[in-house]
Amino acid sequence: MEKKQTIGIVAIVATVIAAAVLMFTKDGGFGADAFKDLLPGFGYDWGRDALQFGKNLDIWFMLMLVAFLMIFIRKFEWGVALAVLLSAAASFVVYLGIQQIWFEELWTQQLLIRAVICAITVVIAIGVFLGTCKMWQYLLVGALFSVVYAFIEWLLLGQLTEWTDLVVTDDGGSVLVHMCAAYFGLGVALGIRDKRAFDEPMYTTTHSVTFVWLASMLLWMLWPSFVTSLLPGTIDVTKATITCYMAGVGSVISTYAMCMIFQGKVNPLVYTYAMLCGPVAIGAPLLQVGPWGALLIGLIAGIISTTCFIYLQPWFCSKIGVLDIMGVHNLHGVGGWFGAICVSIVLAASGAGFEASVGTLVMAVITVAVTLVTGAVIGIIVKLTRGDMEICTDDTDFIKNEAPA
Amino acid sequence: MEKKQTIGIVAIVATVIAAAVLMFTKDGGFGADAFKDLLPGFGYDWGRDALQFGKNLDIWFMLMLVAFLMIFIRKFEWGVALAVLLSAAASFVVYLGIQQIWFEELWTQQLLIRAVICAITVVIAIGVFLGTCKMWQYLLVGALFSVVYAFIEWLLLGQLTEWTDLVVTDDGGSVLVHMCAAYFGLGVALGIRDKRAFDEPMYTTTHSVTFVWLASMLLWMLWPSFVTSLLPGTIDVTKATITCYMAGVGSVISTYAMCMIFQGKVNPLVYTYAMLCGPVAIGAPLLQVGPWGALLIGLIAGIISTTCFIYLQPWFCSKIGVLDIMGVHNLHGVGGWFGAICVSIVLAASGAGFEASVGTLVMAVITVAVTLVTGAVIGIIVKLTRGDMEICTDDTDFIKNEAPA
Amino acid sequence: MEKKQTIGIVAIVATVIAAAVLMFTKDGGFGADAFKDLLPGFGYDWGRDALQFGKNLDIWFMLMLVAFLMIFIRKFEWGVALAVLLSAAASFVVYLGIQQIWFEELWTQQLLIRAVICAITVVIAIGVFLGTCKMWQYLLVGALFSVVYAFIEWLLLGQLTEWTDLVVTDDGGSVLVHMCAAYFGLGVALGIRDKRAFDEPMYTTTHSVTFVWLASMLLWMLWPSFVTSLLPGTIDVTKATITCYMAGVGSVISTYAMCMIFQGKVNPLVYTYAMLCGPVAIGAPLLQVGPWGALLIGLIAGIISTTCFIYLQPWFCSKIGVLDIMGVHNLHGVGGWFGAICVSIVLAASGAGFEASVGTLVMAVITVAVTLVTGAVIGIIVKLTRGDMEICTDDTDFIKNEAPA
Repeated sequence: MEKKQTIGIVAIVATVIAAAVLMFTKDGGFGADAFKDLLPGFGYDWGRDALQFGKNLDIWFMLMLVAFLMIFIRKFEWGVALAVLLSAAASFVVYLGIQQIWFEELWTQQLLIRAVICAITVVIAIGVFLGTCKMWQYLLVGALFSVVYAFIEWLLLGQLTEWTDLVVTDDGGSVLVHMCAAYFGLGVALGIRDKRAFDEPMYTTTHSVTFVWLASMLLWMLWPSFVTSLLPGTIDVTKATITCYMAGVGSVISTYAMCMIFQGKVNPLVYTYAMLCGPVAIGAPLLQVGPWGALLIGLIAGIISTTCFIYLQPWFCSKIGVLDIMGVHNLHGVGGWFGAICVSIVLAASGAGFEASVGTLVMAVITVAVTLVTGAVIGIIVKLTRGDMEICTDDTDFIKNEAPA
Repeated sequence: MEKKQTIGIVAIVATVIAAAVLMFTKDGGFGADAFKDLLPGFGYDWGRDALQFGKNLDIWFMLMLVAFLMIFIRKFEWGVALAVLLSAAASFVVYLGIQQIWFEELWTQQLLIRAVICAITVVIAIGVFLGTCKMWQYLLVGALFSVVYAFIEWLLLGQLTEWTDLVVTDDGGSVLVHMCAAYFGLGVALGIRDKRAFDEPMYTTTHSVTFVWLASMLLWMLWPSFVTSLLPGTIDVTKATITCYMAGVGSVISTYAMCMIFQGKVNPLVYTYAMLCGPVAIGAPLLQVGPWGALLIGLIAGIISTTCFIYLQPWFCSKIGVLDIMGVHNLHGVGGWFGAICVSIVLAASGAGFEASVGTLVMAVITVAVTLVTGAVIGIIVKLTRGDMEICTDDTDFIKNEAPA
Repeated sequence: MEKKQTIGIVAIVATVIAAAVLMFTKDGGFGADAFKDLLPGFGYDWGRDALQFGKNLDIWFMLMLVAFLMIFIRKFEWGVALAVLLSAAASFVVYLGIQQIWFEELWTQQLLIRAVICAITVVIAIGVFLGTCKMWQYLLVGALFSVVYAFIEWLLLGQLTEWTDLVVTDDGGSVLVHMCAAYFGLGVALGIRDKRAFDEPMYTTTHSVTFVWLASMLLWMLWPSFVTSLLPGTIDVTKATITCYMAGVGSVISTYAMCMIFQGKVNPLVYTYAMLCGPVAIGAPLLQVGPWGALLIGLIAGIISTTCFIYLQPWFCSKIGVLDIMGVHNLHGVGGWFGAICVSIVLAASGAGFEASVGTLVMAVITVAVTLVTGAVIGIIVKLTRGDMEICTDDTDFIKNEAPA
């Protein structure tokens, strides 16, 4: 290993161990005192925890599947899986540390779910700049991202309303998760600004793309767990399950139609991504529309996302000077914007008042601004600590044991 | 694209959008009024919805896995995945529309589960005629099938008892799902009657078959969610979990023994299918037998299905003049019949009376008749709207990006 | 087929059918009387059953994934899947038979979960000696193992405390599942003692290893279902979810660091296994430590397991004279020991008294002794009934249908 990499790995792991020891000694009884307030008297809700257990696992399931959604480049399979694991692990644990030290949160399924949602957000974000940094730096990006995410969550889901009377409506995370991921990723890519990455064609194989089909189809199926994971009442869970699947069905249908109309054939790496745009967009208006409104949102979301993948992507990437490797912006960025606009229209038309109608749009603008700037700063840190690199975009980090030809 | 295909795609998508707009405007408040009756006073059961949430997702999981169960043909992988998504999306949304307009059903997890069961039924059915129609026609088949399914459900789970005193016992869907799928698929195949499809060998690769192993093993594991999804009491859920897994274990063992005895080797495309025949067959007698009775049913089901795959398939296909591509009849058709016969014997022996004993068999006969006829009609519609086709059985519908050799 | 194999298959299947008939006739009403005590008055807890349903399925999910964790050898993919199914099926059904006949257990989700935990234990165990026995013998091993497992469970989770006042603490199965699997597997390998197996390199392919990544990542995600499946209270479920994921995050990070420090590259077949060592080790101290203590345990577990895979494996295998094909001992054996030692330290430091502090270590020693001896006996039985074999380590048991080159 070269020197910078060794220093980086050792520094990160030493930090994690030191922090764990520190936090550990803070809680008495070998750390088990951390749970001492898990009692009904302290606001702990057992029944809610029991129902949230399965959703917690489902979101981790989705996080792992995001790896397989991005695993299609023949020369870069295992690296994607490892990058996902490392960025998720770092952001999960740092986010929990922040919540303990600054916000003194209770250890509940609720808190764990917020932590894995933070982790899945950075995992989506790395899709923008995959292959332009060293493997250990995904630990660094994950750790730094969780600070940004905790700040945005604190600012937009609490302080904004307190300071301005604006009300944000984003139950399923169109803005907090998807736009945050897309623009943070773009920020990092702008900070790294590496033109060498992926200047050769990103060849696939039949089965590397079959893994993508599997991941996309299972993500689609799991989406209701994601959007309902933090909802309080079971009646809202039922409503959200319905609108989420209706939106998903909409983009499954319209994405196919658009692919055929635009190109006469289906590009699997457009279809498997854009078919998820309904679920992305329904996040904000999740509980504000009925089943058929959700279907319409899904139909339109699929049309918009497919158009962006096929027509916006080349123009957008040449304009900003970096390549959005996985087209994250065409799914999560554009889908998030569409969701935020939908909820504003619905709330305005329902006479919900100015603060509620524009709240989510203001949240979206702040999210874009904060993530682009912090992302760019983190991208510059990544570039400075990266050391020599030819190309990071293949699986040469791994020991292989294939039969000689 | 050729003309018929363009017209087809545009017509279908325009219909979906128009219907969504229509349904949307019918419900007030941007469609959110659709949920206004989700209150305990209207018979809405929150606790039941909470327990059914996970099963709803599991059935979608199974639906997606059915795609991977059929993905073994080297030249036809992604097309199977897309066909599954399109047929499922169309049938899901049309079924829900029918339930809203004709039956004024409440929007609950219960209704969603019935809709995804309708969708998985058509997904199983397309296995019979995969590759003999254009991709957009899976949307057409899905939409038309849901009308047939809603009719059968209405007729057999309600009207039959009202009109005739016959009692049907099919808690886990041996007849309603599996026989319906197999005979509807055969009906469509008979309507299309295409001899050109698959006249070349259906070559596989090691990993295309490994995906089938994955799908089959996960389907087996998820089966209790499927058979218990509409059961009212938790005690029945426990009973059904036990009988379902016992039947599954039975066919895992007996299918292996039969494969070895018949052929001296295991054909993975027989084993991975026939090992699911226990869970298929247990659907009807789900709550009528104990654990060891279920094990016996599973053992016998595995033996019957393996025999059908190896010996019945060639004779049956030459007899009816069409090829059952995925051997759907050997698993779902035969397994369904066996389940219906089992429940009749058990009920007769338990002294349950004539109406209860023959009810499920009558239901099976009606299901076969209705699905064969409607399937054939839909098959003829498919043939008339199909336009030119050489062979549909490969992935030429897709844009590929493989490295030059 | 050769003679011994035919006799073996017929004997096993005949036994299963005979036993099923016997058990079946014992329970009245076509076996349905088996459920007659599922009433609250008999200690049956409906609410608990409802919450355990999903965990029951999740453990079967993990069992299936263990197959894909072991599926990396290019020449031996489908055989691993079939071996997993057969050994699981046999052990599941025999374990349930034992519980019915000897212990008269109620048929609950609880009992089913215990049976699938027995099955997953033998599935882990066969990883040690995969490829050194005939396919039908996995049925034999599964059936015989379940007797050993039921004995260990009876002895260590009940009788030990009754006879000696020692208290064992192993909520998440570090000892009962992982050590039991590792040492039983080693025992069988010592009994078979086959030097010919795998004397050629175990070549992999890119995608066979990608399946391993998928399996490992999903196993990691599902782990909380496994460790919480038999816990009584929902508050313990929340605690255990937290400590399990924290331990998992720890080994995801430290395994990466160790792989890079030791070898400068990541061996995927070390990483995907050792990253699970945190969850293995947390099993025993599951409810005795807090979140940060769990993170520390996970970090150290990853370091230990990676070290064992890279440095201990060659020495260990040459010392005992057999090859641990999948490195089961480096993950489950070593991780189990570390978990047992951790809980002893924590309990001793917490002043829990001598009986509680050494209880789990005594349990570990007894488990190793019993499984090594019984495993070796079963290994000898396997060798005696195996008949001729050249090499069992490829997929020649299967019918293939690949295109001619």
